[in-house]
Amino acid sequence: MNFLEITIQKQKAINLLVNKFAEQISCNPGILESHGRDESTHIPMPPDAVFFAQSTEDIATAVKICAEYNLPIIPYGAGTSLEGHLTAVHGGLSIDMSRMNRVIAVNENDMDVRIEAGITRKDLNAHLRDKGLFFPVDPGANCTLGGMVATRASGTNAVKYGTIREQLLSLKVITASGDIIETGTRSKKSAAGYDLTHLFCGSEGTLGIVTEISLKVHGIPEKVAAGICRFTSLEKAVNTVISTIQMGIPVSRIELLDTLSVRAVNGYSKTEYPEANTLFIEFSGSEASVQDQIENFTMLASEYGGTHVEFAENQEDINALWHARHQLLYATRALSPGKNFITTDVCIPISSLAECIIKTRADLDASGLFGSIVGHVGDGNFHTIILYDPAKPAELEIAESLNRRMVRRAIDMGGTSTGEHGIGTGKREFLVWERESAIPVMRMIKQALDPKNIMNPGKIFLDIA
Amino acid sequence: MNFLEITIQKQKAINLLVNKFAEQISCNPGILESHGRDESTHIPMPPDAVFFAQSTEDIATAVKICAEYNLPIIPYGAGTSLEGHLTAVHGGLSIDMSRMNRVIAVNENDMDVRIEAGITRKDLNAHLRDKGLFFPVDPGANCTLGGMVATRASGTNAVKYGTIREQLLSLKVITASGDIIETGTRSKKSAAGYDLTHLFCGSEGTLGIVTEISLKVHGIPEKVAAGICRFTSLEKAVNTVISTIQMGIPVSRIELLDTLSVRAVNGYSKTEYPEANTLFIEFSGSEASVQDQIENFTMLASEYGGTHVEFAENQEDINALWHARHQLLYATRALSPGKNFITTDVCIPISSLAECIIKTRADLDASGLFGSIVGHVGDGNFHTIILYDPAKPAELEIAESLNRRMVRRAIDMGGTSTGEHGIGTGKREFLVWERESAIPVMRMIKQALDPKNIMNPGKIFLDIA
Repeated sequence: MNFLEITIQKQKAINLLVNKFAEQISCNPGILESHGRDESTHIPMPPDAVFFAQSTEDIATAVKICAEYNLPIIPYGAGTSLEGHLTAVHGGLSIDMSRMNRVIAVNENDMDVRIEAGITRKDLNAHLRDKGLFFPVDPGANCTLGGMVATRASGTNAVKYGTIREQLLSLKVITASGDIIETGTRSKKSAAGYDLTHLFCGSEGTLGIVTEISLKVHGIPEKVAAGICRFTSLEKAVNTVISTIQMGIPVSRIELLDTLSVRAVNGYSKTEYPEANTLFIEFSGSEASVQDQIENFTMLASEYGGTHVEFAENQEDINALWHARHQLLYATRALSPGKNFITTDVCIPISSLAECIIKTRADLDASGLFGSIVGHVGDGNFHTIILYDPAKPAELEIAESLNRRMVRRAIDMGGTSTGEHGIGTGKREFLVWERESAIPVMRMIKQALDPKNIMNPGKIFLDIA
Repeated sequence: MNFLEITIQKQKAINLLVNKFAEQISCNPGILESHGRDESTHIPMPPDAVFFAQSTEDIATAVKICAEYNLPIIPYGAGTSLEGHLTAVHGGLSIDMSRMNRVIAVNENDMDVRIEAGITRKDLNAHLRDKGLFFPVDPGANCTLGGMVATRASGTNAVKYGTIREQLLSLKVITASGDIIETGTRSKKSAAGYDLTHLFCGSEGTLGIVTEISLKVHGIPEKVAAGICRFTSLEKAVNTVISTIQMGIPVSRIELLDTLSVRAVNGYSKTEYPEANTLFIEFSGSEASVQDQIENFTMLASEYGGTHVEFAENQEDINALWHARHQLLYATRALSPGKNFITTDVCIPISSLAECIIKTRADLDASGLFGSIVGHVGDGNFHTIILYDPAKPAELEIAESLNRRMVRRAIDMGGTSTGEHGIGTGKREFLVWERESAIPVMRMIKQALDPKNIMNPGKIFLDIA
């Protein structure tokens, strides 16, 4: 088909959708613009229409129309992804899940819930709180659960509770042909057939649309304590993390903020943390176990010269600490207004973490660009936020070559280019570096499940347009 | 092709394999017979040849030959599966993995290992012991790790450590076209592309052959204590389990043996456990935490009338206890020599466990057949071992209808027909009951990855011959 024919086909599909769903379909330019971007600085590309979906059945109907007329489909959660996942590279229909935010069932006795995919992490936790339950996976952003499933998200609590992957029991998914499937059951384990739950988790909307999720939740711990610990060098801070993990101290969060990150946090969140390479740590469990963990950690940190280990035990102080941590992307940007940024996401075996971070810091310092290092270091996962001047193309090139060297370093150490952000449009080349042998099999699956390539096209694979 | 043409094609492939691999290929009738069966009483069907593989590259070469001549391929580990997974329903080449049993790397600092798929669970643990590490997943049988990956196995320790699925980092897999792929990296988490590691896990050799595995291992706990606790009714025993899990007491194993099972164990293992509905429990962790767990559990069990809570702390007694438990299949058979058996494997949300087990026990009692109930009840997973007289076809029918009712009961309660044994040939109908909507997607994947249907044909899907 030529461009004109494609445009006519698309318009037919949108007309049918408008006839069917009336004001649930929007072509308002502002809405289109906001649905073609995420929180990164990847170039936004708006869809042709946005569908504010209200039920699985409605989405299935819409998918059938899109399939007939080859209109691409891009599921949209809270717009917080970081690798261009939401850009409509060939236009198409953005399916906004925000109205599908119901809690369908809370099974307290089994510690599992059934939710619609458009509910946000914070809304789910607000719903669970008075039942003594919580959903631990916490990427910082107030993303939707569907978005977390799509990108295989994790965040600060993964070192104790695992990523979104470990919480999943079953998914309701709409396939590229508009069929509705259920991938699992509520049982804690199963050996029945192919594990489609985990195939769809991390597939970034390229194989189907997740509309409902059954997932494990956890009991709110009896006691939580969070605190900070400062070090005279990056190496000492990271070695403290490595020893903590290797000794099996069951930290629930252990986050690294380098000196620059602490400066950014102070400026943005009006905190007064001394500017040093710092660990933010959280322990949880029974009263006795938290005390035990604090003592073991403090002793261990002091061996690496960790000073000013201070722990807060009231929820307000703990929340303030993690809020400051979670604002770091915005905080780093605020250090140099007008700059754009790239954010990186390597994850490596923990034994190589110190070497990888120190080489990365040195490379950053030598580049002349401004960048902070922060991370879920307990998992071996860290991010750099590298600022560049959008008016100076050479700076973007330098930032990208820093990232490329870091990814190569991580892969050489047995690691991955992305611990939790996903591939999107931004890391497609890195996927080839990292999993070249496996890509043909991924591609066979994509081709089999989405032969017309209408499900979030242009993501994950370099050369499927 | 007609039968004669198929036979000629097969013979050509086997001739080529013999030319290539000489004495690594066996057509000895005894060897063929032993490779066409598992530990169940599903009717054995021998392959046409057995290949004692020694390297990934050799298997890839063999697969290419098989693909060219449409010779089916059945990977063979230790022969301990229970659902007819190893039967050569269309003949073919059994690939015996037992010579591929090397430990390739132990990364102590990252607590992960790289192994060949033919290593057994016990050999792996023997290798790890002096490093203070262990691999926890324990299905009882001394299966190979490749077999565990293929059937998504778990066992007694899953309540604390998760199943084989949760331990996997990456797999080396040979595809149906003989290509060698690596599905992941050594990093603890990754969001890079489709999760092929977990797609191949549980695919029962129908999508490819796993030849190497990177997996997490764990530190040997400082302290382990195991013991038994007896109850006056099945219901009280199961309710103790439910409360233990719901209260979050971190048991490492909690196994139910009903009265019949205890009688069987005593007869077979020369133990003298009083005949009662009994829990076998294990706690592990620090000295203080184990003491704490024992106290909490004992208090809780006593609320349900649990008596004679006794804990052993020396490794010999603990081993004897678990050895007795793991012999239960043989022990139950020994109660009635000459009988065949079927073993069942439902897994349900824990809140429904008491109801499901009690209804199942009543159904068993009413059937006139002899059957024991045993299980990894902390996961909601239990087995019945139902004996029948092979000379009386009506008994097999009764046993199968008991199983069908149990599976229906489990599915109605939100559970699965198989917690850990897999589908094989024996549960293909149940897969349809349980995941009907998802089977077309599983089938698309099978068709895409194995278009000639040479990878362990006749398993998982009812109507792919």
